Amino acid sequence: MTHGTGGTERRTVPDGLPVSIADVEEAARRIAGVVVPTPVLRADALDAAVGARVHLKAENLQRGGSFKLRGATNLLASLTDDERARGIVAYSSGNHARGVAIAARTLGIDAVVVMPHDAPPEKVAAVGAEGATIVGYDRYTEDRAAIAASIATRDGRTVVPPFDDPRIMAGQGTVALELAEQVERLDVLVVCLGGGGLLSGCAVVAADRWPGVRIIGVEPDAGDDHRRSRAAGHRVAVAVPRTIADGQATTMPGEHTWAVNGALVDEFVSVSDTAIVEAMRFVFDELNVVAEPSGASALAALLSGVVTVPVGARVGVTLSGGNVSVSRFARLLGETP
Amino acid sequence: MTHGTGGTERRTVPDGLPVSIADVEEAARRIAGVVVPTPVLRADALDAAVGARVHLKAENLQRGGSFKLRGATNLLASLTDDERARGIVAYSSGNHARGVAIAARTLGIDAVVVMPHDAPPEKVAAVGAEGATIVGYDRYTEDRAAIAASIATRDGRTVVPPFDDPRIMAGQGTVALELAEQVERLDVLVVCLGGGGLLSGCAVVAADRWPGVRIIGVEPDAGDDHRRSRAAGHRVAVAVPRTIADGQATTMPGEHTWAVNGALVDEFVSVSDTAIVEAMRFVFDELNVVAEPSGASALAALLSGVVTVPVGARVGVTLSGGNVSVSRFARLLGETP
Repeated sequence: MTHGTGGTERRTVPDGLPVSIADVEEAARRIAGVVVPTPVLRADALDAAVGARVHLKAENLQRGGSFKLRGATNLLASLTDDERARGIVAYSSGNHARGVAIAARTLGIDAVVVMPHDAPPEKVAAVGAEGATIVGYDRYTEDRAAIAASIATRDGRTVVPPFDDPRIMAGQGTVALELAEQVERLDVLVVCLGGGGLLSGCAVVAADRWPGVRIIGVEPDAGDDHRRSRAAGHRVAVAVPRTIADGQATTMPGEHTWAVNGALVDEFVSVSDTAIVEAMRFVFDELNVVAEPSGASALAALLSGVVTVPVGARVGVTLSGGNVSVSRFARLLGETP
Repeated sequence: MTHGTGGTERRTVPDGLPVSIADVEEAARRIAGVVVPTPVLRADALDAAVGARVHLKAENLQRGGSFKLRGATNLLASLTDDERARGIVAYSSGNHARGVAIAARTLGIDAVVVMPHDAPPEKVAAVGAEGATIVGYDRYTEDRAAIAASIATRDGRTVVPPFDDPRIMAGQGTVALELAEQVERLDVLVVCLGGGGLLSGCAVVAADRWPGVRIIGVEPDAGDDHRRSRAAGHRVAVAVPRTIADGQATTMPGEHTWAVNGALVDEFVSVSDTAIVEAMRFVFDELNVVAEPSGASALAALLSGVVTVPVGARVGVTLSGGNVSVSRFARLLGETP
């Protein structure tokens, strides 16, 4: 349990973090023509359930169905002409792949994407539809980063990692930058957490824009590497998580993301797959939007009581992705016709 | 088949229509604190499927899950203090009931709502949750308007009809007024059509704001009373429609709505329940939002080819509601876990 008290003191941002607020502001300008501003959703039933004023940043309504387009576009738009001509290679469980594929097509860059064999088929299909070449691997026995690195070496391609790169982190931070223009002030910010790209970028913005904000990262129970790293005082790895939250199935915090998140994030918590499913049901029923498991985890922490906030607090929550097929959705929610 | 050509001539708006553009503008000011502005959704896959630039006005993201809150709020906010004190009575298949209930609670007005026994249970529950008193009736054998009228006479309550009232029509028209602020220009406007409240209000705005726009109303095949009325040259009734589009199960155009729609709407078309289900699937898969059957009918007309538009045309489409439970949604889409 954590109590987001939302004090009024501005937190100290250490010098030398890999991403600055200026980096995020620059990313916002760079990606403006490619990403769309996403709405902030509110609902009486949501406020009642949480006992606070909850603002859902609906990145499930982003192009490509998740926030991932932001970081991918920022990195690709930062490449030199020579790098663009030689193409890129990315690795991803799904949403980063799709974001990279959209950004690459938009910017005219050839893309190869390394995806696990057990990625949701609709995510693989969506990447293929954008014109990227897909290379499969076994998530439990092979090292996707090594596969991508060997392709990069062979072809002269630039690697576009899913989270552990300051350009990716700055791009994802534009989610919070946009939110800061849409809401007046936040006491608590709750962010979905896999590798830490979204959380780190948002933490940089939150520390700058909302003095005293409490920043919370939410992992799936099976992949609580950030919580364990905080407890250990350094980055530690967990076994490959078996969770419905495929976008958060990372084993270890990134080097660059941890430099930010370790310094700025107040608390790391985790949620069960059951709590995630209930959050998916809640947003379907009460907000008429679709969240995928990874995208619903931050809200799940609030609805399940893993995170509690003061009555009436102003809370920002990322609804970070919505890429789930109708049949997977129905299966997860246990619905029979 | 209809070809929305989007000419450049401003249509002639007859004198003496029951709703003017000034009425809609006044409604927008009156309801501003209660309704939320809804986003316009776009998707590459949607543009590709239709062959045009499609702007989905997402009223499924409105408070109460549909556009109905707009008209209800406009009517209730127009009542005198004495009328407010005596309360209101409404009849509805679901979404109007919920809109009325929210508006009544917000404005502190006691509400009775007459709902059919076969209304989706989640819609009935949502109305009850807002504090309204619910009176049930049989949609196939009883006259809901007569039931509401007798309650009104008995208690001195004001009747809030679901569509055939200029204050309701003006309120629903704020959907298009808001859309006109969000998009530069439209060549074609495609609107979900039951009793005609939404269409009539939007038609008044479209005629004023988008010269040459082609206005199309979309009914379910089983409830094509507007199409038949246009063919007959006067209002005609159909049997109570059996369709999944419960919000469009009306039997006859309204008197006031027909005065507007008969004059301003270019074409009335109808879609099958199958086409509606496919549109619901499309917005789930490609836009990550939930549409109920009635709310998806306008888009269904475009996706199924019932309405065709010129390549590259700028098309506005109402996604007018999203109130469908997870289990009904899964059942309609034929999903088994």
